[in-house]
Amino acid sequence: MSKIVVVGAVAGGATVASQIRRLDKESEIIVFEKDRDMSFANCALPYYIGNVVTSRDLVLEATPEQFYDSKQITVKPYHEVTAVDTAENKVIVYDKKAEQSYTVEYDKLVLSPGCSANHLNLNSPIAFTLRNMEDTDAIYQFIEHHQVQNALVIGAGYISLEILDNLYERNIQPMLIHRSEHINKLMDSDMNEPIIEEMDRRGIPYRLNEEVVKVEGNEVHFKSGAVKTFDLIIEGVGVKPNSAFLQSSSIHLDEHGYIPVNNKFETNIPNVYALGDIITSHYRHVDLPAHVPLAWGAHRAASIIAEQLAGNKKILFKGYLGSNIVKFFDYTFASVGVSPSELTHFNYKMVEVYQNDHAGYYPNNHKLHLRVYFDSNTRQILRAAAVGKSGVDKRIDVLSMAMMHQSTIDDLTDFEVAYAPPYSRPKDIINMIGYKARNL
Amino acid sequence: MSKIVVVGAVAGGATVASQIRRLDKESEIIVFEKDRDMSFANCALPYYIGNVVTSRDLVLEATPEQFYDSKQITVKPYHEVTAVDTAENKVIVYDKKAEQSYTVEYDKLVLSPGCSANHLNLNSPIAFTLRNMEDTDAIYQFIEHHQVQNALVIGAGYISLEILDNLYERNIQPMLIHRSEHINKLMDSDMNEPIIEEMDRRGIPYRLNEEVVKVEGNEVHFKSGAVKTFDLIIEGVGVKPNSAFLQSSSIHLDEHGYIPVNNKFETNIPNVYALGDIITSHYRHVDLPAHVPLAWGAHRAASIIAEQLAGNKKILFKGYLGSNIVKFFDYTFASVGVSPSELTHFNYKMVEVYQNDHAGYYPNNHKLHLRVYFDSNTRQILRAAAVGKSGVDKRIDVLSMAMMHQSTIDDLTDFEVAYAPPYSRPKDIINMIGYKARNL
Repeated sequence: MSKIVVVGAVAGGATVASQIRRLDKESEIIVFEKDRDMSFANCALPYYIGNVVTSRDLVLEATPEQFYDSKQITVKPYHEVTAVDTAENKVIVYDKKAEQSYTVEYDKLVLSPGCSANHLNLNSPIAFTLRNMEDTDAIYQFIEHHQVQNALVIGAGYISLEILDNLYERNIQPMLIHRSEHINKLMDSDMNEPIIEEMDRRGIPYRLNEEVVKVEGNEVHFKSGAVKTFDLIIEGVGVKPNSAFLQSSSIHLDEHGYIPVNNKFETNIPNVYALGDIITSHYRHVDLPAHVPLAWGAHRAASIIAEQLAGNKKILFKGYLGSNIVKFFDYTFASVGVSPSELTHFNYKMVEVYQNDHAGYYPNNHKLHLRVYFDSNTRQILRAAAVGKSGVDKRIDVLSMAMMHQSTIDDLTDFEVAYAPPYSRPKDIINMIGYKARNL
Repeated sequence: MSKIVVVGAVAGGATVASQIRRLDKESEIIVFEKDRDMSFANCALPYYIGNVVTSRDLVLEATPEQFYDSKQITVKPYHEVTAVDTAENKVIVYDKKAEQSYTVEYDKLVLSPGCSANHLNLNSPIAFTLRNMEDTDAIYQFIEHHQVQNALVIGAGYISLEILDNLYERNIQPMLIHRSEHINKLMDSDMNEPIIEEMDRRGIPYRLNEEVVKVEGNEVHFKSGAVKTFDLIIEGVGVKPNSAFLQSSSIHLDEHGYIPVNNKFETNIPNVYALGDIITSHYRHVDLPAHVPLAWGAHRAASIIAEQLAGNKKILFKGYLGSNIVKFFDYTFASVGVSPSELTHFNYKMVEVYQNDHAGYYPNNHKLHLRVYFDSNTRQILRAAAVGKSGVDKRIDVLSMAMMHQSTIDDLTDFEVAYAPPYSRPKDIINMIGYKARNL
């Protein structure tokens, strides 16, 4: 029987502990979580604030008591791991409530400390970030108790877009600002046009190249000189890795503070693994490093680490494709593959098609815009991006499966779509991409 | 400049003529169609009867005049090719209106005669089949002029299911009978349960193992002894290949009257090609013959034949996967791969998962049932089938792309789904199939 210590009890940490227990009924498993809550559904938080997710119980997936009763896994909230000694196989844990530190030995250590939200230091009681359940509860209660009528959303990444959508659906008038013109960076910038259109259509104001200078009471002073009054401010201005506690250890961090791992999710130190938003790894389809801090990767890593610890050494991580998706009002934006900025590593060509999601004569058909980048020499697909009101998730998922198999752009003519009028067309947009690329 | 003769002007024939013209601006292209209409959207017909497709113009995609003006392709309706002489490179054409035959020489011959609906010979003015635009117009006008209140649908294949759904949506009370218990044969029979449930929920009567003995006026006499009154009868009792005109030729037909083709869609005779519902070919992922009379295959064949005629000899057909899909009220039924009966050729295992289409806490989530069959030895995927109210088309399309690349069941753990709560789960049902199969 060995002792397995996990740092962090949110998506990565809670999942890896469960997966290890599934294959190993004997070992002692203990999970330290610096904050209040374990195992909440991160991706649900904006939707809970918007009352789209109707119950808080649906967001909090497990409590330490439930986890112990059902899995014999010990989870310790408010316990922060402050240092790791890999020579002695031990961690220093700070018990925040008892205000004291103690030492815990491990045989295997799994790091899933995640990231924290960046703050603008506005020093205002109306300003919040949205990263965990505590943030969420604070925003939710603030809205309930302060008759919030309008809100400023700072930033234009996934969380900012989702919270803006949800505030609007809850009848809180939102406004968006972003410090540059480059919103939703995972998408090709010209494909983000429907984001602006969706805001215009609803009379939602926005300002690009805008920043907050200071907040006085409810008065927000902008860099442009404008002054406006808001009841609530949500800051979605990026994250930083929670890896300060590793600075003193022998565990290698990259220049941004993330942990590089190999195809077993091992760090540079034997018996020390890492997963979740804290790691960097590599792409599956091309030879480039990849940092993909999303839920699928955390779950895949949890399974592979558990298999490795159980001795199934052949089960390895083959890399990320970077699949990502976001809903913004009626539109879906999704992409897979290298990011727009990473395309510069390649000699590439691009092909794009606008086509109805399904048969034109069948009701509720919407134009779908699909764009695929491929290597000019090998013709292998490097990246795909899609925008539309329906069928976006399907096309990106199909292309993710294609790219997992190193598909070329020409292979797409052979994709045999399941066709009936409500679903697609006899020549699906994916086929059309392949046909159109023949001439390139 | 050569002369290309096409037999049949519906999906396969009209599309191949267009595709040939796209690559070859010089040749003379002439298309003979035995019936009234060219290039109608077959798959739209039930939806046009249901008034879901709101305009007849949306169903009739082109007229001979438009085709000639835009593509310089001559289409001759009511002209039936009655014989082919491959030694002399000529066809005999019967002009139905002039009631006379004549001979046409060709350099290349492309056969797309399709299939005709089987008839029960009920000898009743209220009984119709639904195969082409003429049938559709007849049914549509009959409904309009005879105050049709109820209808008997005979058969339980795709067309019968779609017409039943559409009649109901048009406030005509339908009843279904089928001569056996095996409805919707492309699906695993136990996965068809929602078909029965959807009918029960709407009070739509049905009888399995039932047949019509005779029709007298509006009185339908059943094999079971029951007698019921209907305003309309739709017979969906299968099809037969329109290949009688080839019996006297050297073109090889199989024992059912279909035309075997190679990976260029060539028949056994040089310069004679075939496509559409009339052909038989092979599966892509396994070494078995395949007959997949669906729209995707006709369009793929049209493109490949055009490329072959244009001298692009390397563009070959790699085979069918058999992707198919049907909507029946709120449910979607889809599958890909070998048919349930063809599984007997393999030593196989099956894994199935029931899981929410997307995050459980997000509204409108529905249970999805996904089943995948794989070869016990090679672990290659042989067949997949899915049923549910949402997300069925996406999963079958993703698996179609996987099977195109000879994916194993174990590869599915690596599928990187684009995850956000409205679309999927961090471990998508496709991942879960892969994880569950590990223990098999």
